[in-house]
Amino acid sequence: MSRIAYVNGQYREMRDATVNIEDRGYQFADGVYEVCEVRNGQIVDFPKHMKRLQRSLSELRIAMPMPLASLQIVVHEVIRRNRVGYGIVYLQVTRGVSRRDHAFPIKPVKPAVVVTARNLSFTKNQETAAHGIGVITVPENRWPRVDIKSVSLLPNVLAKQQARENGAYEAWFVDAEGLVTEGSSSNAWIVTKDGRVVTRSAEQGILAGITRSVLTDAMAALQVKFEERPFTPQEAYEAAEAFVTASSQIVMPVVRIDGRNIGNGTPGAVSKRLREEFHRFSSFS
Amino acid sequence: MSRIAYVNGQYREMRDATVNIEDRGYQFADGVYEVCEVRNGQIVDFPKHMKRLQRSLSELRIAMPMPLASLQIVVHEVIRRNRVGYGIVYLQVTRGVSRRDHAFPIKPVKPAVVVTARNLSFTKNQETAAHGIGVITVPENRWPRVDIKSVSLLPNVLAKQQARENGAYEAWFVDAEGLVTEGSSSNAWIVTKDGRVVTRSAEQGILAGITRSVLTDAMAALQVKFEERPFTPQEAYEAAEAFVTASSQIVMPVVRIDGRNIGNGTPGAVSKRLREEFHRFSSFS
Repeated sequence: MSRIAYVNGQYREMRDATVNIEDRGYQFADGVYEVCEVRNGQIVDFPKHMKRLQRSLSELRIAMPMPLASLQIVVHEVIRRNRVGYGIVYLQVTRGVSRRDHAFPIKPVKPAVVVTARNLSFTKNQETAAHGIGVITVPENRWPRVDIKSVSLLPNVLAKQQARENGAYEAWFVDAEGLVTEGSSSNAWIVTKDGRVVTRSAEQGILAGITRSVLTDAMAALQVKFEERPFTPQEAYEAAEAFVTASSQIVMPVVRIDGRNIGNGTPGAVSKRLREEFHRFSSFS
Repeated sequence: MSRIAYVNGQYREMRDATVNIEDRGYQFADGVYEVCEVRNGQIVDFPKHMKRLQRSLSELRIAMPMPLASLQIVVHEVIRRNRVGYGIVYLQVTRGVSRRDHAFPIKPVKPAVVVTARNLSFTKNQETAAHGIGVITVPENRWPRVDIKSVSLLPNVLAKQQARENGAYEAWFVDAEGLVTEGSSSNAWIVTKDGRVVTRSAEQGILAGITRSVLTDAMAALQVKFEERPFTPQEAYEAAEAFVTASSQIVMPVVRIDGRNIGNGTPGAVSKRLREEFHRFSSFS
């Protein structure tokens, strides 16, 4: 089956899914995106993703390309046309097409919208979670506005590639103070030896992850002890457990950081429990 | 006359000049670019631009998409088809099209190449230079790898827009030490009251500008005193002259910084002279 994408008003086969070379997303990384998990053909935590999308757009002063209700119809149609049961849907909005010039177009143009979706292997993801993943740490080198979920992702690309080349799955950025900010495409968490779950505040230096936010609600309900504060790689090495959160991975146990085993080198009980319980606390649209 | 672009092997009308939505330039800002001045249909300092392009690509481990000689033929053909006498040519190379995943494609894909060109108004540019431009200063917030001329330009976009909204033409970034790095799309220069031309070293914090490099050669030949060191906004406010360099502007006098007149508020003699003499020291291809 060929993949279908929504591009600026049309549903197109992937090979014909194109944007103009003067789309500002292509020439300036002047756009934002969201990735949502799809379960049983339903979008996980869609309202939260849309709220964040609106915030990202608003920070860049890009107009919402269509009403939320219409966007939801489009996203569902892309999921349907690609027959996605379990997988992800990707949504990108850029400032639109305009003759190349750094400043915003003087006469505003229509924002560009792209939506794609694809199946993931549930079995494979569960296997990955059963083994846990490796992480490396790298110096933070992104711009400070990582609170905007922009497509300006080149530092993230290079960090993720470095992880892969070091036999790891994710890279955690470490800021000038020696504190972990977040992963190249995930939020970073540890569980201390006395059972407290720790992650950095979303106030500064990281993206306000949706999975992160739902998980904090889940932990409150499950009466899991939670501390919102930054941690160092050293504290992570010595932690009982570690994990990352992202829409495509929910809670993914981390069993190795910079080559050092975390705990006994297998996924920890708290991480596994949070992964299992997570969707009780999500919404489905 | 419709504009013509070269896109991955084909010359296409601008409205049909498209790239796939999974081009990594669009989803990850995973690509680089060059802008060259065109004079009398010839490319100014093309070999230097190509050397920098190769360096940018190499830093990102993107392959050269075609031999340099072929690329030069394509660039000339785009200039010819757009009948550009005086103007600019834009060249973008991205890692290519691959299913979305932060890390590099496991099976390498063909890099994508886009070339566009357009006429600029020589008269209008000369008028702008005769009046001089205004500049604002903004906090440096780009990633440290600005030595790579990547399309990861969102901070530059926002800085340039801020300049426009403050009645200025360019924004100079100021680093954490209070020193000017460079403009959002240009290098930053001042001329001290005793006639020394000052700009930051290209070793750190800025892009190694081609116009910058040719100008330093020109100054040596013209026996203009030159100091390679950073300066503060305060020193710039009190300078005799200021200017920016960029391929599309060569030497463009700055007459106002953060609302303060520089010198007597008109283009200075050194800036004017360097602008006039510049092309004696450029190459034409």
